[in-house]
Amino acid sequence: MKKLLFISLSILMIGYAIAQPGPRREEEPLPEGYKPASTNTFLAQYPAVNAATRVAMFKVLAPTAQNVQVDLAGKKYDMVKDTSGVWTCTSDPQVVGFHYYAILIDGVAVMDRNSEAYFGSNWESAGIEIPEGPEGNYYLFNKDIPHGQVRSIHYWSDINGLERHINVYVPAEYEANPTKKYPVLYLVHGWGEDENGWSVQGHMANIMDGLIAAGKAVPMIVVMPSGDIKTNADVRVASGDVTDIYVQNLVPYIDKTFRTYTDREHRAMAGLSRGGFQTCRTVFPNIDKFAWMGTFSGFFVRDGNVLDAFDGVFKDAAAFNKQMNLFFISTGTEERNPKEMVETLKTHGINNIIFHESQGTAHEWLTWRRALNEFAPRLFKKN
Amino acid sequence: MKKLLFISLSILMIGYAIAQPGPRREEEPLPEGYKPASTNTFLAQYPAVNAATRVAMFKVLAPTAQNVQVDLAGKKYDMVKDTSGVWTCTSDPQVVGFHYYAILIDGVAVMDRNSEAYFGSNWESAGIEIPEGPEGNYYLFNKDIPHGQVRSIHYWSDINGLERHINVYVPAEYEANPTKKYPVLYLVHGWGEDENGWSVQGHMANIMDGLIAAGKAVPMIVVMPSGDIKTNADVRVASGDVTDIYVQNLVPYIDKTFRTYTDREHRAMAGLSRGGFQTCRTVFPNIDKFAWMGTFSGFFVRDGNVLDAFDGVFKDAAAFNKQMNLFFISTGTEERNPKEMVETLKTHGINNIIFHESQGTAHEWLTWRRALNEFAPRLFKKN
Repeated sequence: MKKLLFISLSILMIGYAIAQPGPRREEEPLPEGYKPASTNTFLAQYPAVNAATRVAMFKVLAPTAQNVQVDLAGKKYDMVKDTSGVWTCTSDPQVVGFHYYAILIDGVAVMDRNSEAYFGSNWESAGIEIPEGPEGNYYLFNKDIPHGQVRSIHYWSDINGLERHINVYVPAEYEANPTKKYPVLYLVHGWGEDENGWSVQGHMANIMDGLIAAGKAVPMIVVMPSGDIKTNADVRVASGDVTDIYVQNLVPYIDKTFRTYTDREHRAMAGLSRGGFQTCRTVFPNIDKFAWMGTFSGFFVRDGNVLDAFDGVFKDAAAFNKQMNLFFISTGTEERNPKEMVETLKTHGINNIIFHESQGTAHEWLTWRRALNEFAPRLFKKN
Repeated sequence: MKKLLFISLSILMIGYAIAQPGPRREEEPLPEGYKPASTNTFLAQYPAVNAATRVAMFKVLAPTAQNVQVDLAGKKYDMVKDTSGVWTCTSDPQVVGFHYYAILIDGVAVMDRNSEAYFGSNWESAGIEIPEGPEGNYYLFNKDIPHGQVRSIHYWSDINGLERHINVYVPAEYEANPTKKYPVLYLVHGWGEDENGWSVQGHMANIMDGLIAAGKAVPMIVVMPSGDIKTNADVRVASGDVTDIYVQNLVPYIDKTFRTYTDREHRAMAGLSRGGFQTCRTVFPNIDKFAWMGTFSGFFVRDGNVLDAFDGVFKDAAAFNKQMNLFFISTGTEERNPKEMVETLKTHGINNIIFHESQGTAHEWLTWRRALNEFAPRLFKKN
């Protein structure tokens, strides 16, 4: 009886499916050494990754297409069609970590139906995680430690003239200590991504859970806002300034809604890429509100002019040192590197800089996971 | 100086974009009467909806494609290409509410790059919201009332052998009442969707916020689990039974993690489509744990056999009436209707049924938003 009911239900449901994605796990076994990427939808067998060789094999069901390619890490791979209309290719070895990619159907870039959606470059893109091995365990779920929560909240912003979505990480102990107050880190994404990036692509909750459980980081609240001025469908015109929204709308909302310390010594801000730029634009004019900051792949100033940048905030090194407890600057070794500017600032007498380089990575999420893992333990601790 | 920094940053960022989606709001004004769909990514001008005529105009940038179509509500629309490679079509008038759709690039169904991603039919699909007008205000954000939070949590399931993701809605007052306990509604999605469906496509937080603020519903916790057995990339083999996971892993985790009442009178379960079937499969064998239930477009039993279904749970009507405070059954008028089975059950003496029909809607989210809006106010209130 149960089986009959289930079959009848299944037939009904299939009627609502628009179409089916590519090959599924039921249909064929994976080649030796390959496993489905962790970034796939839960039924998708491909793309499959060989952890030893770091190559990825893609399959796309597209019987009516003339030409199908995979666009991954700056290279387009031609796919080959079999008699059932499934196109296949295998990539070169990839750098470990998370990468966006696209499928080109007759030259048109689209999302791979086998992938979960990852918002990047302002569209819902496919992504693939190349496993790093044990050194990447710090951003994976650890069942043996307590876990915080990422809370999805909409709050009203007068400046935006719209409700704005934020994600707020609270540490595992937050609910068990109903009178305890916490410091707050504001953590911003980069251009083309959104306020979900840090928890989805960045695995920030796993990183923070691990650091806090190990006693390496102080239990803290992490607020992840949008770095864009979004509008509603009735208006759809950008208004206001996102740094004003952070300071005038968001910080008061957080301090009203969560159990926070509200002084500058307990408030930090950091961001990746454009979010690092927004961090500078927010913190420097509001140095009475923030005492810790970080820019991950986001400290972009033309060489030589760094001492003039940001309205000359670095000119009085002693004043800057006194006010800012930490100025964390990080980069991947395979992207534009702010090393010379960091040297200039240090030579000038700025002594609160921690400079971190992620070896072998570019402008990508593994660089930023590593940055957060280095940055968070240094927050809210004065020597 | 700021402008220079920003330009230099922008150029750097553009280098990382794989490709650009279709026409943007900057590029051309919308035709009279059209507004961007609320389901678009925040920069996308199209699809645009005419609220008066309920038609949608789609645009897709695909200069290299031979043929592009939109697949919406069971009909394929041929698109027409202009000299810049942008394809356009306008749909027939649509039923109000949320609909999935696909773009066909030379016959291959893909996601529209202008849409946010909505997980349905087991892939990240495009979706479009046709505005309902004032009668749909109950599922929109209301800035003048307090708002709950949807918490994203991973918990360990021994049965699944994996961490499982849940979303948990807590009412706005939850944090302000640190010793108060709450009843719990377990709310399940349907086939092909996931645990985010109720909060994303369903706008459940707006619905619950409104009902609670108006005093229509009791403040409650709403737990939204996955209805699928997901596996990890290392195993990727389904194991266990999802109804066992609900009862043996999830309920104890929720009662340990949140301030809940743990008796059956304060625990409800409901689900849409397959989730309604899972609700029956979970609640009937565990009637000591649940006293309220709902199936939204999910009460599927072959006509005539309803009294034999689910191991004969309905046979002793008096016993069923005594144990179950509410058996809510709902449907859209444009889908398979369980009306006759409801009549059979009522004639048989089952007197705790509330039957709700959503006028003019099919197996779709507007049916289920309306169902939740009718169901939630009846929970945890005994006459």
